[in-house]
Amino acid sequence: MKKIFLLVLDGLGDRPNKELGNRTALQAAYRPNLNRLTRTGLGGLMHPITPGYRTGSDTSHLSLLGYDPEKFYTGRGPFEAMGLGMKVLGGDVAFRANFGTTDDSGIVVDRRAGRITEGTKDLAEALSFSVDGVEFFVKAGVEHRAALVMRGERLSDRITDSDPHEPGLKVHEVKPLDQGGEYTAKVLNRYLAEARKILSEHPVNRNRNGNGEPAANELLVRGPGLAPRLTPFSDLHGLRGASISGIPMITGICQLVGMDKIEVEGATGRLDSNFSAKFKAAYKVLEEYDFLIMNIKATDVAGHDGDAVAKRDAIQRIDRAMSGIFEHLDDVVICVTGDHSTPCSLKDHSGDALPILFNTSGIRVDKARLYDEVSCSGGSYHITSGDVMKVLLQLSDRAEKYGA
Amino acid sequence: MKKIFLLVLDGLGDRPNKELGNRTALQAAYRPNLNRLTRTGLGGLMHPITPGYRTGSDTSHLSLLGYDPEKFYTGRGPFEAMGLGMKVLGGDVAFRANFGTTDDSGIVVDRRAGRITEGTKDLAEALSFSVDGVEFFVKAGVEHRAALVMRGERLSDRITDSDPHEPGLKVHEVKPLDQGGEYTAKVLNRYLAEARKILSEHPVNRNRNGNGEPAANELLVRGPGLAPRLTPFSDLHGLRGASISGIPMITGICQLVGMDKIEVEGATGRLDSNFSAKFKAAYKVLEEYDFLIMNIKATDVAGHDGDAVAKRDAIQRIDRAMSGIFEHLDDVVICVTGDHSTPCSLKDHSGDALPILFNTSGIRVDKARLYDEVSCSGGSYHITSGDVMKVLLQLSDRAEKYGA
Repeated sequence: MKKIFLLVLDGLGDRPNKELGNRTALQAAYRPNLNRLTRTGLGGLMHPITPGYRTGSDTSHLSLLGYDPEKFYTGRGPFEAMGLGMKVLGGDVAFRANFGTTDDSGIVVDRRAGRITEGTKDLAEALSFSVDGVEFFVKAGVEHRAALVMRGERLSDRITDSDPHEPGLKVHEVKPLDQGGEYTAKVLNRYLAEARKILSEHPVNRNRNGNGEPAANELLVRGPGLAPRLTPFSDLHGLRGASISGIPMITGICQLVGMDKIEVEGATGRLDSNFSAKFKAAYKVLEEYDFLIMNIKATDVAGHDGDAVAKRDAIQRIDRAMSGIFEHLDDVVICVTGDHSTPCSLKDHSGDALPILFNTSGIRVDKARLYDEVSCSGGSYHITSGDVMKVLLQLSDRAEKYGA
Repeated sequence: MKKIFLLVLDGLGDRPNKELGNRTALQAAYRPNLNRLTRTGLGGLMHPITPGYRTGSDTSHLSLLGYDPEKFYTGRGPFEAMGLGMKVLGGDVAFRANFGTTDDSGIVVDRRAGRITEGTKDLAEALSFSVDGVEFFVKAGVEHRAALVMRGERLSDRITDSDPHEPGLKVHEVKPLDQGGEYTAKVLNRYLAEARKILSEHPVNRNRNGNGEPAANELLVRGPGLAPRLTPFSDLHGLRGASISGIPMITGICQLVGMDKIEVEGATGRLDSNFSAKFKAAYKVLEEYDFLIMNIKATDVAGHDGDAVAKRDAIQRIDRAMSGIFEHLDDVVICVTGDHSTPCSLKDHSGDALPILFNTSGIRVDKARLYDEVSCSGGSYHITSGDVMKVLLQLSDRAEKYGA
């Protein structure tokens, strides 16, 4: 049976760019390998979730992997935590967090502790401890931002925020939204009280006090989300899976469904990522695993920057780096698509459809000729992200027959 | 953020017509503006509700506006009443009705009161009164046809018809189908008894008796439907909406979801409607509102007449009237489609797919070149009516991001 290689070019879809002669980044890119894969295989358009849906990378990747986000997406908390590279397991409760500043009476005077930049890593480490058998993990992000993960039995996200969301108000006591949240609220309040003590005495804050800077003496938590307990990928699809991604959130989602994470040196999740190293690693991984999802973030980064030329160039470099794929088509089914569009003209995600191609030896050849948003629309597939795994399983001759 | 203009050409889809060289009315029409919108934007095919569904205007419009008719369509009663221009509110119970003739023992001798043509307006007026705090409204339609609307607290459509559906039978007492219908049945029976008295003594009927014509002495009601309480359009989509339509039923649906109704002089809902006046009004409405749905009925009328030439000509006149649209594409996303097909060869609605186009400045351009049932199939979208609002929200950059 063939192996499956799902290549996700993050934010791939585009709208016309004036600086590229009213072409999308894909249309403007020199992409002989992507075009050859399309010309000798099957093309189409893929809508993330459903037509017109404007999705995030988290919801789209869940859907691409065969997990319906309408059922399993539990808010940003767990995915933000994964985005900081934290391990999140099904049943954990995760929060977005800020280091903030309170006065002696517990009133928030600055929700961002003066946009603190240094020392947050140390503070986060000091805040990672257990209360009542529940483990708490904190990791610092950019400036005052952080994430908190609670791990233990019987945790619930049916609780309120401690973050009052505006300065001048007292830090809120965390309250249960229903009976299910009572235990979690109680443990979390105890943890936050302990954390307060640790922060107020921490050398980083003594230093800040000495310098007249607002102390990061409160961890303000918000947006609790219970990480879904997802059927392992191997059980859902019968595939031993691995992921390659420079983006911690994508790696986190793949780990949440039990895939192995493959680290590639030089895979940065930025425009300067080493694409050749990633593809080289990919072919090696496919010798061992049934399924590989590889995310390349550079296309999305350029889209958010509104830099159409950079997006085009990233596609060109990706195309060059993947020339080796043709040697593997006897053993591998490749699918190239994106998770959502990030038009340079919008500098954000849009709900525009994405091109998709499938190729492997012996596959049908359809009328899609070029790999872009327009030419692929003449291909065989007009599908949603939730269909992709089914198509891949059948093209790799792995799908079970439904009926007789 | 851009405004949204949803233009519904009623019954637009067609099948090949011999008298047009085996072309559809659209294919045969000179339609430079519709073609230009397609060529410089996105095209596709749209299936009302799901592929192959043969829909009415009511169910299709609900679906186009984002309300699943499988959940919210409660039978023809409320929509027939709206079709007569009656105001129908969520919670009302509405019926189709006939003026019929009974003999002294209450046996129906003519369900159509000799296809009465004159005086029904007066009879209807006399039948609009309250019983027990429940308001009853009757409006006359063509010949013996009418509609009845009940408005009050706790009304239910779980009741039987008073109409025995064939002559020679006694007028039925209205019975509850379950406990929920008991109160409504009781009030309605009291109303119908009162109505019977009023009708028998009404000058219109004295006159008919004098002339030997069958008296319209019984209001036979059938097909009760509880008007659905729909989430207001503004809450569902975050859009302040308005409607322009010469068809009372469409206006009624739009009012049911809380849209404002814009009257346009010369908008008749017929072949002679003043299309230019409608488009002129449309651009003005779009300055004030976020969303406009405009229905043009002429295409459907010609389809029902089986007049392919008239359908083609109506499309040509609509196309000419909409030439001003190109001045608005910086601020407006336009979508042109229909609610269902009305092939001239069938003289009725069919479940054939409809062409759809989307355009606005900066939009992707796909392979659809001409606006018709065939060329549009090469475009980007193969969607259902329930997807249309999602696509419009994302193209107007109004869609909220789902995930991060």
